[in-house]
This record gives sequence, C-alpha cells and structure tokens, in this order.
Amino acid sequence: MELKDKLRHVMDFPVKGIDFIDITTVLQDAGTLDECFLRMREEIEKIGDFDLVVGPESRGFIFGVPIAVIMKKGFIPIRKAGKLPHETVIVEYEKEYGKDHFEIHADSIRPGQKVIIVDDLLATGGTTEANVKLIEKLGGVVKGIFVFVELEYLHGRDRLKGYHVSSIVRF
Amino acid sequence: MELKDKLRHVMDFPVKGIDFIDITTVLQDAGTLDECFLRMREEIEKIGDFDLVVGPESRGFIFGVPIAVIMKKGFIPIRKAGKLPHETVIVEYEKEYGKDHFEIHADSIRPGQKVIIVDDLLATGGTTEANVKLIEKLGGVVKGIFVFVELEYLHGRDRLKGYHVSSIVRF
Repeated sequence: MELKDKLRHVMDFPVKGIDFIDITTVLQDAGTLDECFLRMREEIEKIGDFDLVVGPESRGFIFGVPIAVIMKKGFIPIRKAGKLPHETVIVEYEKEYGKDHFEIHADSIRPGQKVIIVDDLLATGGTTEANVKLIEKLGGVVKGIFVFVELEYLHGRDRLKGYHVSSIVRF
Repeated sequence: MELKDKLRHVMDFPVKGIDFIDITTVLQDAGTLDECFLRMREEIEKIGDFDLVVGPESRGFIFGVPIAVIMKKGFIPIRKAGKLPHETVIVEYEKEYGKDHFEIHADSIRPGQKVIIVDDLLATGGTTEANVKLIEKLGGVVKGIFVFVELEYLHGRDRLKGYHVSSIVRF
C-alpha cells in the first residue's frame, strides 16, 4: 500500500499558497490506519530503547498516543498555552503561519528519561525544535523524532541536527 | 489497579469553582495507560459491532485513535471550527465554560455506517450531544458513546437518552 496516495491535498488552506496535507483520509479507512501504524512501529523500533512518547497538540496526539499504547510506554502531551492544568514550563515557537506557545507539565519527565517525539508533520521544524527545548528543559534525553509526513523542501531537518529524525511519507 | 486514584484533581482550573480532572497522570505512566486501554476495550466490546470511531478535538483524539487502531476500525476526528481543511458540516454547542462550534468532514461517514463516540469526559453532555448531531447529520448510526471519566453529578446522560453510554471512572 502506498500511504502517500492516501493523503488528500487541500490547496490554499489555512491560507493562500499552502498545499495542506490532510491526514484524515488516512485515519478514516481502517486498513490504511492499520498499515500506517505497522509502518510507524517498524520505523520507531529502529530508534532503540526509550521510556516515553511526547506528542504536541493536537495531531501529535493522533499519532503519539497509539504508539505509546502499542509499545507500552507512557505518553506526555505538549499543549498550547493555558491548556495544561498543573505547573508547566513554557516555550515560544515560530510555526508555518505565525507564532505560538507550547507548554509541558513540569513533573512529566524525570531527568535522564529517554523520550521520542511523535508528530504528524515535519515542515520548517519550528514546532519540533520547540518540543525538543521543552523536553531538554526538564532533563529528558531526546532519543528520536518521528513524523508521519516530512515536507523535505522546507528543510526541517536542518534545525534538528544531531537528532535521529525519521518519517514514512516524504514530499 | 484503581484508575480513579491515578487521576489528578486541579481546583479552580480553568476557572474558579471547577474541580478539573487531569488525565495526564494516567497517560504518563506506561502501566496505568496500558490498564486504561485494556479496560476501555472491554467496555467497548460490550457495545457490539461498529465501523468507525469518532473522537472530538483534542482529548477525544487521545482516547479515540488508540481504540480505532487496537480494534482495527477507522477514526474520524471532530474538530473546532476552521481546523478541518475539506468540506464540513458544523454544529454549535454549549460547553461547561462557554459556547463553541464543532465540525466534521462531510465525506467522512457514509449513511448507515455504525459509529461509536470516544471522549475523555462526560460532564453536562453538551459536547457529546453536539457530536451525536454531527454524526446523524451525515446519516451515521450512533451505536454507543464511551467516555473515560463521567461526572455523574452533572447528569450528562439525561441529554443522551436512547443511546448506549458507558464509562470507566465515575465521580
């Protein structure tokens, strides 16, 4: 199965000029979703041993939580500012269409814990870089970064030098 | 394992007077997360056969996608207005702390498909009722509603009469 062909492209969303990759067409078909997670698991097993999966709101939840459940690890959400109820650490980041803030619960990762980041998309690398900063502020060790779709023409990997980055679908 | 004891209560979040149930303490511990999904699967198997899992942004993604992956079904996201890129149907709803809009992709459910709704919390039932409306607008059949935590003192079930509603943790 060619997962790339299962993604829907929506032009000019959310703003003019953007070729938006719609993952919902992968999610809604049971066979495609199953294949997607089999392939993700294979890729993530190459990273080696880890303790926790971190996923950013909200499409990082879509890919990150099932990986944590399937691989029997804990899951740590990163959320937009003001959403997490307990004490947090915060970071500002630049995204494809503007600026925003991310937060993580301050007690969610213990120093030295091995963490992988799971998200839907690697574009310019701004959100992933912000995730790395939050994890490292808590003393976590980023063992790998896994994204479902990588937009290679935006060179997100350049901002993530020294980290293991993998993806399944590349444009 | 008593899952109820693994939840964290945060008083006065997001507004004064609210006893916020923080699910992140369940997610971050691998053993607790595993137990949580074993128990959820048991409950959902009682609902009988279904085709699709629907989950609302963003905590519905946390519980809904792993259930779809584990049970080999498709997953349909319901999102806040403006987030889904393709043609949608929309509904207004009242939530615990204000009003908002939900959208679903118009082509995501075919008439007659059997659907379950999965979410983190049943409070007043406003968001779940809105999810039901969206699914039924598309001709989907709501076979069951599953929530991880039910706040029984808010009587959310009263708004969902005639539907199969189940939960694991009740306050």
